Amino acid sequence: MAIHSKFLDALTPSSIRSITAKIRDKAKNGETVISFAGGLPSSEFFPVEDIKKIDAEIFSSEHGNAIQYAASDGYDPLREYLVEFMKRFGVEGINYKNILITSGSQQGLAYLSKGLITPGSVVITENPSYPGALDTFNAYGASVIGIDMEEDGMSMDKLENVLKENKNVAFIYTIADFQNPMGVSMSVEKRKRLVELAEEYDVFIVEDGPYSLLTFNGKVMPAVKSFDKYNRVIYSGSTSKTIAPGLRIGWLVADEESIQKLVYLKMRDDLQVNNIAQRQVYHYMKEYGFDEHLQQVIDVYRERRDVMIDAIKASFPEGTKIYKPEGGLFIWLELPEGADSMEMFDFVFQKNIAYVPGVFFCPDGSHKNAMRLNFSTTDKDTIAKYIPILGEMIKAYKK
Amino acid sequence: MAIHSKFLDALTPSSIRSITAKIRDKAKNGETVISFAGGLPSSEFFPVEDIKKIDAEIFSSEHGNAIQYAASDGYDPLREYLVEFMKRFGVEGINYKNILITSGSQQGLAYLSKGLITPGSVVITENPSYPGALDTFNAYGASVIGIDMEEDGMSMDKLENVLKENKNVAFIYTIADFQNPMGVSMSVEKRKRLVELAEEYDVFIVEDGPYSLLTFNGKVMPAVKSFDKYNRVIYSGSTSKTIAPGLRIGWLVADEESIQKLVYLKMRDDLQVNNIAQRQVYHYMKEYGFDEHLQQVIDVYRERRDVMIDAIKASFPEGTKIYKPEGGLFIWLELPEGADSMEMFDFVFQKNIAYVPGVFFCPDGSHKNAMRLNFSTTDKDTIAKYIPILGEMIKAYKK
Repeated sequence: MAIHSKFLDALTPSSIRSITAKIRDKAKNGETVISFAGGLPSSEFFPVEDIKKIDAEIFSSEHGNAIQYAASDGYDPLREYLVEFMKRFGVEGINYKNILITSGSQQGLAYLSKGLITPGSVVITENPSYPGALDTFNAYGASVIGIDMEEDGMSMDKLENVLKENKNVAFIYTIADFQNPMGVSMSVEKRKRLVELAEEYDVFIVEDGPYSLLTFNGKVMPAVKSFDKYNRVIYSGSTSKTIAPGLRIGWLVADEESIQKLVYLKMRDDLQVNNIAQRQVYHYMKEYGFDEHLQQVIDVYRERRDVMIDAIKASFPEGTKIYKPEGGLFIWLELPEGADSMEMFDFVFQKNIAYVPGVFFCPDGSHKNAMRLNFSTTDKDTIAKYIPILGEMIKAYKK
Repeated sequence: MAIHSKFLDALTPSSIRSITAKIRDKAKNGETVISFAGGLPSSEFFPVEDIKKIDAEIFSSEHGNAIQYAASDGYDPLREYLVEFMKRFGVEGINYKNILITSGSQQGLAYLSKGLITPGSVVITENPSYPGALDTFNAYGASVIGIDMEEDGMSMDKLENVLKENKNVAFIYTIADFQNPMGVSMSVEKRKRLVELAEEYDVFIVEDGPYSLLTFNGKVMPAVKSFDKYNRVIYSGSTSKTIAPGLRIGWLVADEESIQKLVYLKMRDDLQVNNIAQRQVYHYMKEYGFDEHLQQVIDVYRERRDVMIDAIKASFPEGTKIYKPEGGLFIWLELPEGADSMEMFDFVFQKNIAYVPGVFFCPDGSHKNAMRLNFSTTDKDTIAKYIPILGEMIKAYKK
């Protein structure tokens, strides 16, 4: 007997897991895959020595209290710190009661899905978008409608059309900065327009900001939330890409009443976030040179991006369109019309090189000729060596 | 604008939080409350020095990998260890694929609720039972039916009647060992019968085992799961009461297919549990004298229980019934018929003493004359000093 329900039986592994499984199979045979498929930050730069020091200090100063039951809304010094932190994105006028600490930003997305999606709900996303979010919206019963992307963010005209045609919109989901997978950022004009449309059509916006500080040109954009006069935007933050994902620290920013409801949900769901992780993030950000660390990571990622773009230009089929990102972890490519990146995956994979096909990011099955390449986890020499092989394989592929 | 939905708007703070709030208000006025209301283990015994050492070792040996993204099903060495650990409760014949690591046992209960409760579902619990579980079952839409407790666990006759009368039972929830709040344990005969009834009436059992190792007489009972021939029992484990709750480590044990579905849910909900906490628990249990630690805690808790029971006998109203627990954290009392522990709470609280009224544990509003006293977090001298004051206040209370 296994447990069954309509809800559970509809859950399947994420599509990206099929790639992970293929890579694992190769590893079992002793083969190494060069994976441009990941969405990971590079673990070589995680501040492990600092976190080791922080742990020792936490236990020496707080003793057992550091690992006793604690509040469901989060560790107050961290919440207070994040109030200041949000000013980096132009978000002002909030206090710690506007912040809920979550087990990674994924948990915030899940809470909002559980809280706001009802039977018949629509969630509007960028198309393409982050599969982990799309999977969660689907799991909680939403139909996802994707809005075509332009180089300055989703099309506001198409968004308005969809808002006009759909009365049961739970929320609009956007990754405004260095979007996953396209790497593009929404223009300030569109951010303002997005907030106005949300107010006009009486819907909420969920703004996911994991990559916002990973900026290669020194510019940090004002968050959509910073233009939010109406409490229409719920901001989701994360330290997974700027410190380390295994800590599982994220946060939601919203009006106090909304946060309070989400706290009641958290009490039911898992009581509270891991105490030590909250303290690690708090002390690291406040006292341990977070900005210097970030600059080091940014410098490395920028160089890797540049090496990757040069290699793509030199080796990929003529007519390939490259979206050059000014931050984040990903390069999005469109191969010439007619190419199918999903079909050619196994052919390319013979050379032990992996990427993510574009369709994995598209609820409507579009972007068949696109692919996402991650540049954060592979060193520049390896990028310079293997991207040309990837380009050659793509050119060599025949249906 | 705050977010709204039928689901969210139905969530309220847990009833026990109203007591926490009263205690906090007193603290703001500089007054100290002697709280017998908590459900906490005693933080003075948390193995902080060992965990500090473990953290240093983890980072030295695993570097950044220790805090990279990791598997949704959990840290495999911990899962493998728990396979062995479950033998303490007579659970044999499982492998690591039968185990999902969760963020505390509360998360396991929430996953099972989300997965199995559908509109119209009934969850059967002991009456009284753990409010945190009752709140979660309610939040996800179940009607809770409580089965009267006897001194050897819930009444099997009454359970069978409820099973006969209700066709849409999502699961039966039991804390078989040192039950919260009553402190009693289910007999072996009833455990066997419970499994047979679940098979006969085609329902699942969720067995919550947070207190099972906190045994004062050296006896660890075989889990209900150990009698499970039919894969009808999903076992929920936790280290919150045996190591420390702030680590947020729990686990579910079930057939592989059920675990796989719950892993897909975890991928949607929060991706994975905090890496460091999983390693802390693994290394602590395996290499750092977990059993000696447990024995130390047990010896202290047993003495506190004894002091509390003696003080209750000497000072509480005649006719008070004391359930003497052989383990766990709580003593359950029934005051003489007609007493109302909720009504007298504020009167008693004038003396800065808190307890939890019995009705907080009862979905049907029964057990008005009962109360739960926690003995784990107050030292024996304080227990000996304040329980008599509590007893005198109860005797002095007039409606």
